[in-house]
Amino acid sequence: MSLTRRFALAALSATLLPAPAALAQPDPLPSWNQGLGKHTLLAFIARVTREGGPDYVPPAERIAVFDNDGTLWAEQPSYFQFQFALDRTKALAPQNPAWQDRPAFRAIVAGDAKALSALSHKDVQEILAISHAGMTTEAFARTVAEWLATARHPRFGQPYDQLVYQPQLELLAHLRASGFKTFIVSGGGVEFIRVFAEKAYGVPPEQVVGSSVVVKLQMATDGKAELVKQAQVEFVDDGPGKPVGINRFIGRRPIIAFGNSDGDHQMLQWTAAGSGPRLMAILHHTDAIREWAYDRTSQIGRLDKALDEANDRGWTVIDMRRDWKWVFPFQRQVP
Amino acid sequence: MSLTRRFALAALSATLLPAPAALAQPDPLPSWNQGLGKHTLLAFIARVTREGGPDYVPPAERIAVFDNDGTLWAEQPSYFQFQFALDRTKALAPQNPAWQDRPAFRAIVAGDAKALSALSHKDVQEILAISHAGMTTEAFARTVAEWLATARHPRFGQPYDQLVYQPQLELLAHLRASGFKTFIVSGGGVEFIRVFAEKAYGVPPEQVVGSSVVVKLQMATDGKAELVKQAQVEFVDDGPGKPVGINRFIGRRPIIAFGNSDGDHQMLQWTAAGSGPRLMAILHHTDAIREWAYDRTSQIGRLDKALDEANDRGWTVIDMRRDWKWVFPFQRQVP
Repeated sequence: MSLTRRFALAALSATLLPAPAALAQPDPLPSWNQGLGKHTLLAFIARVTREGGPDYVPPAERIAVFDNDGTLWAEQPSYFQFQFALDRTKALAPQNPAWQDRPAFRAIVAGDAKALSALSHKDVQEILAISHAGMTTEAFARTVAEWLATARHPRFGQPYDQLVYQPQLELLAHLRASGFKTFIVSGGGVEFIRVFAEKAYGVPPEQVVGSSVVVKLQMATDGKAELVKQAQVEFVDDGPGKPVGINRFIGRRPIIAFGNSDGDHQMLQWTAAGSGPRLMAILHHTDAIREWAYDRTSQIGRLDKALDEANDRGWTVIDMRRDWKWVFPFQRQVP
Repeated sequence: MSLTRRFALAALSATLLPAPAALAQPDPLPSWNQGLGKHTLLAFIARVTREGGPDYVPPAERIAVFDNDGTLWAEQPSYFQFQFALDRTKALAPQNPAWQDRPAFRAIVAGDAKALSALSHKDVQEILAISHAGMTTEAFARTVAEWLATARHPRFGQPYDQLVYQPQLELLAHLRASGFKTFIVSGGGVEFIRVFAEKAYGVPPEQVVGSSVVVKLQMATDGKAELVKQAQVEFVDDGPGKPVGINRFIGRRPIIAFGNSDGDHQMLQWTAAGSGPRLMAILHHTDAIREWAYDRTSQIGRLDKALDEANDRGWTVIDMRRDWKWVFPFQRQVP
């Protein structure tokens, strides 16, 4: 710990010394260690919700946006949605014997990690189309739900939707209890995330913004209207797409934005460019023991330019190893 | 009044005879006349919110979608957003002397109704681009707010946002009090509607689905991130686009859909195709005295195929003249 940080913490301890009445309040973020990160979050929320205070923000404008992969749940060793696409393609292979002539599909069926890492852009597009298109929106949601119920993460042996971050679940709940609307703004597929976001995070489908494929209305053989997913990308909610997606879906500039990679950079910049109080936060993956440690050179969730700007502008950088008591719910030690 | 209708009303009066406790409840829809329309709406809401009842719907799934033009506010003698585009173009004409050489722009400046009705598709596209693009999202919202504050409707002499339907305001409020989330799903521009929807209808920006132009992130000269509207249509939220827009923005099939024209037909069909209790309603403009009377042959808000299907399938058709005590708030007679 640097001298500066020790001083800052000592100053915090003094100013945060609770009044007797406050002692009775339970800690809304019990999985966060005491420190600058936790203090910044709690102080900001208190500041914008104090009626009559100079930085009061009315509830209708309390919009908080969170990236998903690497911010609310893990994203290693590969994005979970890509693993879903591989598993789904593998499951469909027996009904598609012609795929055996294709090296990419043989690699998927064999689980050949080296060959998989060398998939061409065209292969990846085709795998995404096979696993995400040519079916109704309801049928797709069912395949995602079945996958979540049966697939297990290679390192932790848990269902993928158990690899959510316990400290972030507490932050989302505290924000909502403080009158915020919490949104997910993800580069991942909107229809993929909506399947589990309500149960996992308490975020309803209408508060998920994400990438999408074209969807078309058609009449089923029984004469009923249905929506069918097409193998054509409609919107990529990543990088500069994130402010565009927020504007399109939410129509209001957030006052809190939380990300973890350069894909969140423009969302953080656009949030920062608004007037009035605002909080930009980045989760830095520094915990190789309990989760993973990666940043500037990672193929997945690269955090480089956004980290520089965070340091330059004093955005809040959360250090996973130092700021979080535990990472996943299943690692939690209840005394 | 037909014999059948008289019998139906007599039956209703009997079944609706309130128990003594119910008499104390204020009527949530005071601007609706007693009749089949009002009864159907109230009975449906009571049915899906009765805990333990066979048709109970949990609050998270209580999604109600409303078209805007002709369903929540008036749309005659032309769509209000088109009038905004004309007024905006006219206001910009003095700074654009070259427009004087163009017949379409001369017609706009002169307010020549006959010439305006003959505008070509290209002219209309250009007027929409001039009035809706080439500025930041914030600047656009300001021009809409200024227009709403100053422009007056040609027939009623009222600001356009006073031409909302009082009975629908009561229905929206009653739905929200009953745990529904109320959404607007409009062929109109999403950024146009969001400017007044919260104040006029109590619908926040994030619950407005509409048509949109492409929006691009750019860095302003002060280094701040901003979003600029482009002269390129991105999404048309009309006809088959309405179920697509609902799926994209809301991610759940509504259980109530309310429209007034063939542009709402597919939204009503897709809502109807879901399982469980659902209500499809159409506002039929039958009131030439207090509002307008139009349907199958109207250039604006044509109601033809959707009316046939409503009659075939027993969807709820609201007859403005018969079902509403008054139309606009300024027509309301408080005893």
